[in-house]
Amino acid sequence: MLIIGEKINTTRKSMERAVRERDEDLIREEARRQVEAGAHTLDLNCGTLPAEAEPEALAWLVRTVQSAVAQPMCLDSPHPAALASGLAVHEGKPMINSISGERARYGQVLPLVKQYRAAVVALGMDDRGIPQDRQQALDVGQKLVSDLLSDGIPVDDIYFDPLVRSLATHQGTVIETLDGMRELASRFKGLHFVSGISNISFGLPERRHINRAFVVLSVASGLDAVIVDPFDKTLLALIYAAEALTNRDRFCLKYIEAYRQGRLKP
Amino acid sequence: MLIIGEKINTTRKSMERAVRERDEDLIREEARRQVEAGAHTLDLNCGTLPAEAEPEALAWLVRTVQSAVAQPMCLDSPHPAALASGLAVHEGKPMINSISGERARYGQVLPLVKQYRAAVVALGMDDRGIPQDRQQALDVGQKLVSDLLSDGIPVDDIYFDPLVRSLATHQGTVIETLDGMRELASRFKGLHFVSGISNISFGLPERRHINRAFVVLSVASGLDAVIVDPFDKTLLALIYAAEALTNRDRFCLKYIEAYRQGRLKP
Repeated sequence: MLIIGEKINTTRKSMERAVRERDEDLIREEARRQVEAGAHTLDLNCGTLPAEAEPEALAWLVRTVQSAVAQPMCLDSPHPAALASGLAVHEGKPMINSISGERARYGQVLPLVKQYRAAVVALGMDDRGIPQDRQQALDVGQKLVSDLLSDGIPVDDIYFDPLVRSLATHQGTVIETLDGMRELASRFKGLHFVSGISNISFGLPERRHINRAFVVLSVASGLDAVIVDPFDKTLLALIYAAEALTNRDRFCLKYIEAYRQGRLKP
Repeated sequence: MLIIGEKINTTRKSMERAVRERDEDLIREEARRQVEAGAHTLDLNCGTLPAEAEPEALAWLVRTVQSAVAQPMCLDSPHPAALASGLAVHEGKPMINSISGERARYGQVLPLVKQYRAAVVALGMDDRGIPQDRQQALDVGQKLVSDLLSDGIPVDDIYFDPLVRSLATHQGTVIETLDGMRELASRFKGLHFVSGISNISFGLPERRHINRAFVVLSVASGLDAVIVDPFDKTLLALIYAAEALTNRDRFCLKYIEAYRQGRLKP
């Protein structure tokens, strides 16, 4: 499981202030703590800034974080200019979050994916928006992945995000989304699946229980990358447990290693 | 989900002492606390006592617990004499834990199930022991459920227990067991599934994570009764969450009710 830490995001007030004031120490500390907690890469998002300020801010974030930790970063913006600016200073193999089936976005982000040989989060939507039913979701997903492959992106670099909707408003679609992942996985051998896991619980109380149960079900359906709060130790422990239970952690070696590293204690 | 509280069991030292000394207050308190925590019925097991003492002890347990809580009980013993003694004093519709495909046990327990119109836990094993592979497990389960049905037990009274083995020693069989539940469910409409959830993690560290992830996967495969420690609030919250996610809690009403009753706070 690729753990993508979600904490460096300017929707958090402390992060927005740190980015505006270019507070390197705070950003470095937040990066280090996430990696220590088990994150393999860090999502960097400064999308609340004015559009004209985002490119320079994202490049600053990339440089600042990579001066603190050795991990590659996940550059999170819908704006090609911001992505280009961040990618230009990134060291190692970056991840771009995200491309989609929307025509303009696809056309603008694809060249960056190719230029930097980046891994890429591919959102399962197109110009009609988020798919309205199971068949449309499958069609959109299949077209997007097929397009990326025929445009030369290796399957191992594609992380498909099925865009899970809120349980409170779209209860019936949760199982459909999980089943859809299995179906896409059988069509595209080696395709990765990524998801944020907090949308699912929007509008419900004590959301962490919903998030945790959902991540377990997602692992069983093939999720192999997740954008999460790496400080939620219970969540990470459930991910390790689910991988062992679904036979994706041979002899439970990763689970036992996580235990030895002290990551299974709440 | 039928929550069966597992705490009144003489494998726990405090419970063995309470049963030997006929400490009514302690037993009543343990019963009340489990029901307050969310248990719908309580497993009563005094199987560590000498065989000749078990029948009287189980009857005493039934009377004592039912003087404290209104719930029906789950009488847990492999010994027909103990079950008969407990059932004779039980009020309401009892559950018997358990019958199996073992010929002698089947022949001795079936009359009690019929006499008391009891619900019954049906262990997926026969005189060859626990099934060694997926096909044998399916065959044994199918024969046992078919036998119970043709002997007049309503399907709604049958709780099939697939006898989950330890992840540490039988990793490959976990998914097989979950898939097997789905297959039996499709063959026997209305069949219930029950499981203890602590065997799965035997031999692994920080077992609660494995137990919790397993219960989520089991709910998705059709589990609708569970023998658990009802004081594990995180576990119960995950069960409510998994039922909502898998569309078995329409509009998340049970999840929200559990929240309002304060059961989702750790």
